[in-house]
Amino acid sequence: MTVDVLVEGRHFRRDWSSGYDVGRRAAAASLADVVAMGARPTALVVALAAPGDLELAWAEALTDGLADEAGTVGASIAGGDVSGAESVTVSVTAIGDLEGRPPLTRAGAAPGDRVVVIGRLGWAAAGLALLERGEAEHPLADAHRRPLVDYDAALAAARAGLLTSLIDVSDGLVADLGHVAEASAVRIELDSAALPVPAELAAAARSFGIDPLEWVTTGGDDHAFAGTVAPPDVVAAVANGALLVGTVTGGPPTVVLSDRPTPAHGGHEHFS
Amino acid sequence: MTVDVLVEGRHFRRDWSSGYDVGRRAAAASLADVVAMGARPTALVVALAAPGDLELAWAEALTDGLADEAGTVGASIAGGDVSGAESVTVSVTAIGDLEGRPPLTRAGAAPGDRVVVIGRLGWAAAGLALLERGEAEHPLADAHRRPLVDYDAALAAARAGLLTSLIDVSDGLVADLGHVAEASAVRIELDSAALPVPAELAAAARSFGIDPLEWVTTGGDDHAFAGTVAPPDVVAAVANGALLVGTVTGGPPTVVLSDRPTPAHGGHEHFS
Repeated sequence: MTVDVLVEGRHFRRDWSSGYDVGRRAAAASLADVVAMGARPTALVVALAAPGDLELAWAEALTDGLADEAGTVGASIAGGDVSGAESVTVSVTAIGDLEGRPPLTRAGAAPGDRVVVIGRLGWAAAGLALLERGEAEHPLADAHRRPLVDYDAALAAARAGLLTSLIDVSDGLVADLGHVAEASAVRIELDSAALPVPAELAAAARSFGIDPLEWVTTGGDDHAFAGTVAPPDVVAAVANGALLVGTVTGGPPTVVLSDRPTPAHGGHEHFS
Repeated sequence: MTVDVLVEGRHFRRDWSSGYDVGRRAAAASLADVVAMGARPTALVVALAAPGDLELAWAEALTDGLADEAGTVGASIAGGDVSGAESVTVSVTAIGDLEGRPPLTRAGAAPGDRVVVIGRLGWAAAGLALLERGEAEHPLADAHRRPLVDYDAALAAARAGLLTSLIDVSDGLVADLGHVAEASAVRIELDSAALPVPAELAAAARSFGIDPLEWVTTGGDDHAFAGTVAPPDVVAAVANGALLVGTVTGGPPTVVLSDRPTPAHGGHEHFS
């Protein structure tokens, strides 16, 4: 069971995102947390606090977005509560079914494991930067509005027993893998050249004069999964869609990036 | 699984209630919902949205209140999320264990059943009225700050199979029994003389020049339980602490009060 809260003006703006988009994103945050434990999400409950003058259509679109995102993993909305408030706050709680497996935690990584990523990294951070620059129509802006989460690949890897640890990247790859490093008492070395930088992300980064790996290593909100795989399972994990991005070694718990300084702030910032 | 949201300025005021009180009340709202399904609450998750200048001590007291209220039924806090926001919003999701029993619903009442109440009615409404009149030290004001919910008696009745329906009175006795009447397609007749009016409630009502049954029949926030019991189980239910307050008959679904008009507005009003 896990809860995530999205607050207007902090996590979304109604002039940037539709009610439907906010619903998709709010559901994704909680569903990804459940999948990151290795469980199949089964149900959501939603608490909405909103001003009395919030358009009914916006709230209905929010509910549609929540239900549609839940539907992508076969989960449903089991209930909710609504209250008046000064601004819009959406809290989504999700529960899941481990289907008899032990939960995947942050504590299972061991030296020799490979680090894998399933899903997009840095797209939502780039989209937010573009929205802040006024480029609401940029294709990457949609990645901020509505994450595209590969629940199925992560859950398949969990069901196949391929993962020794798993997390949902919500605060940034380095920050979240830092939790794995701490909990597992291992050093994690990320291979900069292996981190995925699609052309559109590279182009957007150039337009800001920054290294796209900043977004890739510190951006949250894409709800990618990062985990670790023991050597005998690496081939199966890659066949299952996981991308190899680093290695686990012994040493003081930390996350380092090859050929460049590890980003100092390893967490996402909200926009207020 | 159920969620309830409390919003500052709507459900509580920080000058009237301590963080600990708000925690107790927020947890009670969700725990009572779980018990009203006939389930034993097992865990809570909490989403807190709050201004950056909220005192840490207030948030810690909130957490203590949540944990202590959960502890009264053997449940624990399983997780949470925190975000910045303009005002304080506390969303509490609770899950429970039916222990192999089917859930108690609103749809099981049948003509001939007796109506029972477990817990206080109208105390929190009286307390709120007193707080609004500036009487923060009145003993009834504490009933608004922190409900005293008899989870154990309700759960014992559910475990013993004594109830044909059960609800948590959160919007007022008449309004919530109205849901039972609708779902069960029955008429519910409440006996005004059987509704509990303790002396302190009667005295407070006199000081406002109102009938105390207004609070008793329309007040929410005490999280009393109301339900129905089939004739053979009435003695056992009463022995278990349930109070007989009415009868279920056939007829168009409605709730009526003996000797007086049924309160027109049968739901609680927030104070903003």
